[in-house]
Parts: sequence; C-alpha cells; structure tokens
Amino acid sequence: MENKKTFNLQMVKRLPLYVNALKKLRASGVEYISTTTLVKEMKLETMLVRKDLAGLGIPGRQKLGYKVNELLIAIDGYLGWNRYGEAFLIGAGALGSALMGYKQLEEYGLNIVAAFDVADSKVGKEIHGKTVLHLSKLPNLAKRMGVRSAILTVPPESAQTVADMLVMAGIRGIWNFSTKELHLPDQVICHNENIAGGLAAFSFKLKEMYDKETKNGQE
Amino acid sequence: MENKKTFNLQMVKRLPLYVNALKKLRASGVEYISTTTLVKEMKLETMLVRKDLAGLGIPGRQKLGYKVNELLIAIDGYLGWNRYGEAFLIGAGALGSALMGYKQLEEYGLNIVAAFDVADSKVGKEIHGKTVLHLSKLPNLAKRMGVRSAILTVPPESAQTVADMLVMAGIRGIWNFSTKELHLPDQVICHNENIAGGLAAFSFKLKEMYDKETKNGQE
Repeated sequence: MENKKTFNLQMVKRLPLYVNALKKLRASGVEYISTTTLVKEMKLETMLVRKDLAGLGIPGRQKLGYKVNELLIAIDGYLGWNRYGEAFLIGAGALGSALMGYKQLEEYGLNIVAAFDVADSKVGKEIHGKTVLHLSKLPNLAKRMGVRSAILTVPPESAQTVADMLVMAGIRGIWNFSTKELHLPDQVICHNENIAGGLAAFSFKLKEMYDKETKNGQE
Repeated sequence: MENKKTFNLQMVKRLPLYVNALKKLRASGVEYISTTTLVKEMKLETMLVRKDLAGLGIPGRQKLGYKVNELLIAIDGYLGWNRYGEAFLIGAGALGSALMGYKQLEEYGLNIVAAFDVADSKVGKEIHGKTVLHLSKLPNLAKRMGVRSAILTVPPESAQTVADMLVMAGIRGIWNFSTKELHLPDQVICHNENIAGGLAAFSFKLKEMYDKETKNGQE
C-alpha cells in the first residue's frame, strides 16, 4: 500500500513539470505532441512518461500523438488543481515572505489572501503588498472569508499549537513547511514540504559521489 | 531498483526530523531513548521508526534503548552531512533571498558564501548581509574559493544555461529549485526540489478529501 502511494505521489509531483512544458509548447503554436517529443522536452525516461500519460487516462491518436490542450485539461482534472482556492499563510519569516512573493504559486492558482504572525517585529509589516496580521485575528477572518487552506511556515516548536488553532478555525488543508509532523484529525489533510529533508538528500548524493571517487582512486 | 531508491530517499529525507527531535531531547538532559519514546516524539509509525533505526545500523541496548548521542553521530555519518561545505546561490529572487535568510539551512551546516544574478535590479543589492554579484564573476570565484556546490533558484527557462555554466566552473553538486529537469554530465549530482510538485500533491489530497465527502453525502 505504502509503495503504491509513494508512486502516485511521485507522479502527482511531476505533473507541474508537464504543465510547464506543455504550456511552453502551446505558446509556440504546437497542437499535437508525440510521446517522443514529450520525453525529450521533459528530460524523463520514456517508460515513465508513458506511465504518467496512462495514469492521466488520455488516449494518444495514431500518428498525431496527444493533443496538448487535452493533456493540460486532463492534468487539471486529475490534480483538482485550484481546489485549495484562497489560502492563509502563518509565519511571516524568511520562508513565509518568500512564498508570498513566489510568482510560480500564483501561476498555479494559489492565492495567499492574508499572512499572520505573532511577533511584534512582523505584525503590521507589509510584505509583497500584504500587511501581516496578528494570528489572533485568523479565526474570525477564516469564517468571514470562507478560507479553508493554510500554509504553515512557523518554527517547528510552535507548529502543533498553531495547527490545533487552524483546525478549530475550520481549516481543512495544511501545506506544512515547519519540518514538524503534525497530529491532525481525520477530516484535515496535510502535505509536508520538507526542505531540510531535501538538503539531507542533496548531502547524501554528494557523499555517495565523493565516496565512489575515493574508492575508485584507491583501486 | 527504482523502488528501492525511492525508499532510501524517503528515509534520508526523514533524518533531519530525527535530528531535530534528538537534539531537543538531548537539550533536556535525555541520554537514552526507547523506540517507543522516539515513535511518540516523531509522530511516525513504529514499524517505520524501527526500519529507519535498522538502516542506520545502530544497535539498541536492552532496557536502556538507544543512546541519543550515538544516534546523532550515526545520522551525521549516514548523510555525510556537511559534505556540500560552502555553496553558491544563483538567482536572487524571492525564493533565493528566502534561502539566504533561512536559518534552518545554516543549522544543518549549509553556508551560502555568495549569491549571483544577472538582473540589474538585483546585482549589487544586499540580501541578508550578502551583496549579490553578477553571474559572470562566478567561475573565477568558484576556482579561488574552491566552492563545488550550488543552489539553483533561477526561472525554469534559464536553468539549463546556468547549469551548463556551473558545470564548466567545476561545480559538482546542484540543489535545483528551478522546476526544470537538468541535463548534466555523470560527474555532477543534482537534487531537485520541486515546490510546485508539493503544491500539486497538496491540491490532489484536498481533491481526494472533498470528492470523498461529496460521494458520502450523496449515498
């Protein structure tokens, strides 16, 4: 089970890369695309691209290949892209501020409508055109605006407390950058973004490479 | 093969979370830790924690459990943490600036020694205490400072061109945030950080949850 889930997740995470490539092709007037061209454009293995396309359930046309627009629509449908609608951001530190100014998120339809913090140094500050509000204002605003998604960029030690408060405020989805696993009720989904984990993976790959070279050098 | 690799990578990515938890315990005077306590602290499944500990190759002590310090040292050794040494950052936009000010990276030993960009609006600007340099200065500096790791936070359309330049300048490891798959020679490793992919995964999970609720409501 875990296995299957891992694979689906990897496919899901690749889809924005397809969207980028397909939009670029569409902008240059391409209507149909062959698997071969897509493989080349995506710089992925042929088998993987075939698997991803099969997963989307779009049939290719003999000789013509896939219709670029159909693929884009299929990806949209598969991801339920945009379901998060408007989102709150909690924790206006370096990472939080960056996400507020990160244009790619907007391109994918994620609209950060308000940012919150508790630090005197941050509340009231304007970041990328939005004023940081005190966290205590979140429950009322969530109710009034109907916001149900949140981006959590607080330090690990306050992550659970803030998450509990978000749940109480009716938040149903948390995109968690806090490097802390959260205890959440079943009706709330969470996706962990683990940048420290990415750094660990980067370090591990470097280690493997340098170790291999040292070993080869000794032989 | 691919399967195995995925699992190792997932374990590697969890290790910084262990480091956080173990350092917290050590700071509060804990010397030994049982699997049960670690499971509770990490909010992970018991089987997964056992598997991770086995992967690190540290034996538990009857009754006493694991020695906190030994676990931390084992993780350090496993990851080759710190092998990246000093790193350059290329692309001083919102995300790049955030990484320059993101204290967690420093805690894990990643030291961004210089930042580069090509935009007139960014070159010469000071970000978190460092002056952004023109990209053309990178090759000379890499040679002089012996820097071999780079963090790539440029837009997808310039990612490959910049990566080619980094390879020419002797960079051996690229932590790639550009949401673009890179073509690199064998002697250069790359770890892709796909934040747009994370957003896709977040969206997908929300969709699954809301779809399930709609279905249940109709039954």
